[in-house]
Amino acid sequence: MTATASRPRRLESYVCGRWSAGTGEGVPLLDAATGEPVALVDASGLDLGEALAHGRSIGGRRLRAMSFHERAAMLKAIGQMLMAMKEAFYEESFATGATRADSWIDIEGGIGTLLSYGSKGRRELPNTRVLVDGDLERLSRDDSFSAQHILTPLEGVAIHINAFNFPVWGMLEKIAPCLLAGVPALVKPASQTSYLTESVVRAIVASGILPEGALQLVCGSVGDLLDHVTGQDVVTFTGSATTGRKLKCHPTIVANSTRFTMEADSLNAAILGADAGPGTPEFDLFVKEVAREMTAKAGQKCTAIRRVIAPRAHAKALVEALRQRLAGTTVGNPRDEAVRMGPLSSLGQLAEVRARVAELGKEAEIVAGNMHEAAAVVSGNREKGAFLSPVLLYCDRPISASAIHDVEAFGPVATVMPYDGNEEAVALARRGQGSLVASLFTDDPDVAAEVTLGLAPFHGRVMIGNRDSAKSSTGHGSPLPVLVHGGPGRAGGGEELGGLRGMIHYMQRTAIQGTPRLLSAVTGRWSEGAAVRADTTHPFRKSLAELEIGDQLIAGPRTVTLDDIEHFAAFTGDTFYAHMDEAAAKANPFFDGRVAHGYLVVSFAAGLFVDPAPGPVLANYGADNLRFLAPVYPGDALSVRLTCKEINPRQDAGHGEVRWDCQVTRQDGKVVAQYDVLTMVAKSWPPAAEETAR
Amino acid sequence: MTATASRPRRLESYVCGRWSAGTGEGVPLLDAATGEPVALVDASGLDLGEALAHGRSIGGRRLRAMSFHERAAMLKAIGQMLMAMKEAFYEESFATGATRADSWIDIEGGIGTLLSYGSKGRRELPNTRVLVDGDLERLSRDDSFSAQHILTPLEGVAIHINAFNFPVWGMLEKIAPCLLAGVPALVKPASQTSYLTESVVRAIVASGILPEGALQLVCGSVGDLLDHVTGQDVVTFTGSATTGRKLKCHPTIVANSTRFTMEADSLNAAILGADAGPGTPEFDLFVKEVAREMTAKAGQKCTAIRRVIAPRAHAKALVEALRQRLAGTTVGNPRDEAVRMGPLSSLGQLAEVRARVAELGKEAEIVAGNMHEAAAVVSGNREKGAFLSPVLLYCDRPISASAIHDVEAFGPVATVMPYDGNEEAVALARRGQGSLVASLFTDDPDVAAEVTLGLAPFHGRVMIGNRDSAKSSTGHGSPLPVLVHGGPGRAGGGEELGGLRGMIHYMQRTAIQGTPRLLSAVTGRWSEGAAVRADTTHPFRKSLAELEIGDQLIAGPRTVTLDDIEHFAAFTGDTFYAHMDEAAAKANPFFDGRVAHGYLVVSFAAGLFVDPAPGPVLANYGADNLRFLAPVYPGDALSVRLTCKEINPRQDAGHGEVRWDCQVTRQDGKVVAQYDVLTMVAKSWPPAAEETAR
Repeated sequence: MTATASRPRRLESYVCGRWSAGTGEGVPLLDAATGEPVALVDASGLDLGEALAHGRSIGGRRLRAMSFHERAAMLKAIGQMLMAMKEAFYEESFATGATRADSWIDIEGGIGTLLSYGSKGRRELPNTRVLVDGDLERLSRDDSFSAQHILTPLEGVAIHINAFNFPVWGMLEKIAPCLLAGVPALVKPASQTSYLTESVVRAIVASGILPEGALQLVCGSVGDLLDHVTGQDVVTFTGSATTGRKLKCHPTIVANSTRFTMEADSLNAAILGADAGPGTPEFDLFVKEVAREMTAKAGQKCTAIRRVIAPRAHAKALVEALRQRLAGTTVGNPRDEAVRMGPLSSLGQLAEVRARVAELGKEAEIVAGNMHEAAAVVSGNREKGAFLSPVLLYCDRPISASAIHDVEAFGPVATVMPYDGNEEAVALARRGQGSLVASLFTDDPDVAAEVTLGLAPFHGRVMIGNRDSAKSSTGHGSPLPVLVHGGPGRAGGGEELGGLRGMIHYMQRTAIQGTPRLLSAVTGRWSEGAAVRADTTHPFRKSLAELEIGDQLIAGPRTVTLDDIEHFAAFTGDTFYAHMDEAAAKANPFFDGRVAHGYLVVSFAAGLFVDPAPGPVLANYGADNLRFLAPVYPGDALSVRLTCKEINPRQDAGHGEVRWDCQVTRQDGKVVAQYDVLTMVAKSWPPAAEETAR
Repeated sequence: MTATASRPRRLESYVCGRWSAGTGEGVPLLDAATGEPVALVDASGLDLGEALAHGRSIGGRRLRAMSFHERAAMLKAIGQMLMAMKEAFYEESFATGATRADSWIDIEGGIGTLLSYGSKGRRELPNTRVLVDGDLERLSRDDSFSAQHILTPLEGVAIHINAFNFPVWGMLEKIAPCLLAGVPALVKPASQTSYLTESVVRAIVASGILPEGALQLVCGSVGDLLDHVTGQDVVTFTGSATTGRKLKCHPTIVANSTRFTMEADSLNAAILGADAGPGTPEFDLFVKEVAREMTAKAGQKCTAIRRVIAPRAHAKALVEALRQRLAGTTVGNPRDEAVRMGPLSSLGQLAEVRARVAELGKEAEIVAGNMHEAAAVVSGNREKGAFLSPVLLYCDRPISASAIHDVEAFGPVATVMPYDGNEEAVALARRGQGSLVASLFTDDPDVAAEVTLGLAPFHGRVMIGNRDSAKSSTGHGSPLPVLVHGGPGRAGGGEELGGLRGMIHYMQRTAIQGTPRLLSAVTGRWSEGAAVRADTTHPFRKSLAELEIGDQLIAGPRTVTLDDIEHFAAFTGDTFYAHMDEAAAKANPFFDGRVAHGYLVVSFAAGLFVDPAPGPVLANYGADNLRFLAPVYPGDALSVRLTCKEINPRQDAGHGEVRWDCQVTRQDGKVVAQYDVLTMVAKSWPPAAEETAR
């Protein structure tokens, strides 16, 4: 094993563009399995007010100068760099008590979150600096006054105060949406496992991928950091509810209405559906999932299952199955490949968990494991290592109990409780007062609907497990970058991740009102009423170098004849009666007689606006929000107005996306169809040599 | 005038389904202009814990049993009922010191908010109880495990603690999104003007439109109300920052992570653009707007302009123009039609404003008005009425000042401050540390873009005024139901309204994971991988009574020939080279040769899936998210798969909207087009008699 007698490493903080050790002696951090010192941590003497100022002035400015796609590419590059050196992190992670499987969640789960945001940012965001939020709101009939919501990055620093259990993921899942939004981060990992966070930050800083000031790290106490926050900063906290509540009421945070979000541990429930008795695939999956959640990271996960809610008829069989499964959990030094569960993170944590189990024991009986004696440990130091075997409890009258719904033993501990009827299952889950996640194992759609909708208001995530998803399920305990993570009430009331939703917590939403011409100048997006340019050049003949928001083409009219309608029907096979039969069409509540096909209208519109010769417009890749607003009858004459609405050059290609506002009107001025046409347009025309070759 | 010597009315609270007076003597509330007693307010002895329990168990349950469209219809009905009796509210509103114009903002602005939510709810929400949020997230390649975010109403009560200045709007703007979300409200108006709120609630309760428990009212002190909140309740606060901060840290709110949102007064700025000197329309509009914002509601609006930021070159001219305009402000009893500005709400408020002006006076000189002497009052009681003429101050070195950016005189008071350059204008506005709103008067797109984007992170709303929107602008001070209202930092960090955004503050977002079949049971929406029903009946022959989510039709193949492409090109006029010229098409980076038109593909697809005879499907009203995912070459054979995705019966019509998932594939299985087809479908077929007659 790697324990050595050499002096433990002295951790440093990265603030104001340099690595600095604290002025104090440093608190020793011990290997969870061997008790050997791993590192010394101390941040005393650092000027954290200056660190915030540095982040705001240098880091924020540089991040905001980048576009969303540039920031997304940066996240991807960091993710790839870290993935290439992941083995070093795995090695160091053993000291935290994590097995290799545990570390996978932390290390590759964290890196995966960076990569997910890198990918989402490029696919789902425009390549701009300002984000348009929702549709234009028309505030006047004549389109002289409208409004558009926009999102801009807050001009402060996001302070991320993280928990000890995920030193890598805990940092990366927060900085990914934050940096993508354009906000610099200052990370304060929990001291106990901060050596691993420090190693990751060293790799990121050394890579030079991030602009200076975008990421700072404080290893040690936060000191007076929070005294310096403003209304533009954000504070996120993951950890115990007690500490979280104290920080939330910090006078400077309160005085400045600083955004504060909290993700606290909760007493997450897993519910076995009434249909999922012994012998069903769902029963077996449930047993596996509960045992895995109890033992992964030695139960030190804020999403771990603490309450196991089972139909009264199956509770005994469930306890027996869990007892058997947990008996096979080999406990020891995580460096030992035979070990399935490592120690808790520290002896302090072990003492804490034992005290909590004692509280639970007043309401529930221990049916597996033994919290008093040292566990059967196959490797590691039995005295200095924080080992504990899984402890399963059973409470027969859970509705009248309280500690089992309220006292969290942050270790390999769960309580089984029986229920009668779906309503009681939901009521028991809700006794947790709000949780990060609940899971339900059922194959019955009615049970799924009733129980899930009952759980929803009290949970940030609900996972339904069944036979169909047995192989593909990501499991009860895994927050995913594309899904929200957080929960109401006891779980802290916060919300993180959820794809681009997670980014918005670092941005200010602002409603901008004004005349469309000036609104367009702010948002970079054309809207009805804004200035147009209708010069002699067809807009399809303009490359991105020449094209401007507001470039407009008006074409037509073209009369739609009854022959056209009949011809289109015969050609396409769409002989719907409203196009073919005058009497039947008249009987339809929406039409006064035979009407043209909607797709005929958009096809004729394209015929009117398309410029046929090769040019910078490369392809039509779709349409958005197509609405047929009024019928087109034989004899109606169609005109089309095509206006360049949004230009989105790709970061790494010779073209970009251009969104066109397309409006088709009748001879009476009535709008018959309204939609956005989506095209790919070359950045220059004729294209640069390497583009032609693609 | 209406002042009388009769005993003032004793206000009551509406809790637990009955009107009750407090057990105390009652605090007299005085007419702001005459000093005569208007009402007695007291809520002592009420059991507010029971009121919350009543709201949760009775009101919440009944609201949640309604669909979004039913709740929207309810809001509309309340709005119409209140509008019909608005004159009674105008009459009572004079006692608050409001002129008729002031009351319009409060009364009709409030009712308009109800109507806006009633209308948005019907137009923009599905007619369901569960709201789907965002797209399906595919979590496995084989579509056996996916996720969908949903929004469900919190199962608590929303406690709205409101400010004295808008006794009607203040209540209605909060209950509109809250009730639409499905969450009952308990309203606590500021005592000073609670008689008007009480009258409106009496009208609402008497109308019987709301289910019992959906709306409760406490006139008087909140007592121990907040001791009873849970993690499912919501507390909103509008008023002074000092009180708001105290409530935010209330131990029960903190312990339960109860959602708390705060909207505090802020030092909103109005900026005159450098281009908008004397003689320009923008200069005149600016003068009008500043004067109006200073005097409307006697400056007692949380959105009022407190800081007037003007180019140094124009500051003198501006002060002179404002001085002249303000001199014409007739102050007196608002019942007097000659009066342009009424009194402050109370003598206490008057004393408070004078004290604040004295603080401002240390940094700025008073250039119009006089805070020491009683104003020139044309009517009302000079001693007992809380009259004050508008006070304009001027500070020549605003960058080095502090009180002018921090001390809010909540009355007809503003400070003019000069700036040099756009950057300094933005820096001055930001010295307010976050405001509800800022306005900018300019006709220059560059100024609009630079200053607005500089203001955005510090503001919830930015209004750009110019000549084009002079007539249609809703003004600096008006929050609108469709736009967010709130601001960061000093403004409290809250966000309200913003159309449907405002509803989400009362709902829990939950990520639901599972196999699509079970997900569909929860969300009521079909997704890829969920169960399908492909019976012998064409889905277009099913009315809403028969149609089910998952009903599917597979049709095709149909081969696309080169003739088809040439024919479509000639017919529609869309002779884009990629369809017509093999060599040119090959040179295009996306194609290997001539390709079919996208609109040809969707037209052929419709030809494959449409059932021609008259039936329950009435019309195709559009398409969403159309994407052409792969090219279609001559000889390719297209198949179409149409699946019923979402069914949305209209509340008040014989039909509803049906959304179909439409996927077009090539012979090699590759998806070439993916979109949602939108149709109107009859509730029954043949239709009921009255439907045929429509």
